[in-house]
Amino acid sequence: MKRTVDMQSPAMERNQRQAEANRALFHALGVRVFNLISSPGAGKTTLLEATADRLKERLAVIVGDLATARDADRIRRHGCQAVQIETGGGCHLNAEQVAHAFTEIKTEKVKVLIIENVGNLVCPSAYDLGEEMKIGMLSLPEGDDKPGKYPTLFLRTGLVLINKMDLAPVMDYDFDRVYNDCRTLNPGVRFLSLAAKTGLGLDDWNRFLTGEG
Amino acid sequence: MKRTVDMQSPAMERNQRQAEANRALFHALGVRVFNLISSPGAGKTTLLEATADRLKERLAVIVGDLATARDADRIRRHGCQAVQIETGGGCHLNAEQVAHAFTEIKTEKVKVLIIENVGNLVCPSAYDLGEEMKIGMLSLPEGDDKPGKYPTLFLRTGLVLINKMDLAPVMDYDFDRVYNDCRTLNPGVRFLSLAAKTGLGLDDWNRFLTGEG
Repeated sequence: MKRTVDMQSPAMERNQRQAEANRALFHALGVRVFNLISSPGAGKTTLLEATADRLKERLAVIVGDLATARDADRIRRHGCQAVQIETGGGCHLNAEQVAHAFTEIKTEKVKVLIIENVGNLVCPSAYDLGEEMKIGMLSLPEGDDKPGKYPTLFLRTGLVLINKMDLAPVMDYDFDRVYNDCRTLNPGVRFLSLAAKTGLGLDDWNRFLTGEG
Repeated sequence: MKRTVDMQSPAMERNQRQAEANRALFHALGVRVFNLISSPGAGKTTLLEATADRLKERLAVIVGDLATARDADRIRRHGCQAVQIETGGGCHLNAEQVAHAFTEIKTEKVKVLIIENVGNLVCPSAYDLGEEMKIGMLSLPEGDDKPGKYPTLFLRTGLVLINKMDLAPVMDYDFDRVYNDCRTLNPGVRFLSLAAKTGLGLDDWNRFLTGEG
């Protein structure tokens, strides 16, 4: 398969070097870092609000949007640190933006950092931010055909969240199709079904984040 | 606001020249052309199936995906021509891909061409394909904050579709927030509420496409 971005380009090489530096720093500080990627409106911010309710100051969030600081404001109200990156139209976060945002976080009590990428199933998948793992988030109303249609992301996700399970009664959703398409791209992938709004699956999610699951 | 892409770059200039050539050709042939842009899973393909059911051979569709030809196959079964562009990882369609795909369409009976762009609220907004109008599609489960968060698209959409109205009873969705955010970006924008699955709003949609509404 062709790639969107030439992995040998100077910009990609620079991003990769910065990502490795980020990773070394996160490791030295004992912070687990996850890069959360989904379509717009799959429920990333709602999940992070619920996660902050439980982890409080053990969680920090860096959140990327083209414009507005709404998401960081929303998340901060739930008791964790949150730093907004406004990309000014940019379609993904890069490692340099994350390094810069991370300097604003007081790390003493932080065990888990979640980077909420720009809502986009394509471009964010090509950029390493220094994370331990990319997490892909799907939601029931998007339909069950997304992993096959967006393979550049689902090749690289160690965990796939399936959100908005509260809508399962009014949706046709073929879970086996999703599992099979994801496993074809990445045989070792794990899955968690969630309803961020109602709390379903959040215990498992928190155990995963803190390394107990 | 900064732009993702430098509008003066040679690639963008080349795209713009090809887009103007496409537009001249579409005009000469009397085909109205719309560039349909949404998040993954907002319901573009389902809408196009329902549109093909009504317009039949008066409709043609060009559909872009990173991988798979599923969407063109789905749409074709409903009685219109449909050509798939597989972008091989690319995050948007460009005017050259559209020009090439258009050569595969027999235009005698075609009055309306809808280009279903790659599911992505960011990158497709920067590329003119030669269309008469960009149409942005939202869906209720994505939440009502998307126009403000993805301004590069909603600055440029002449029509905003709000889909999955069948889910309204189980959703909190602030329509006025969507209307206001869209109008702030583009005061002349129009709106249509739809449920592609149930048929709600499809008469208005068909009248819009054929120029009767």
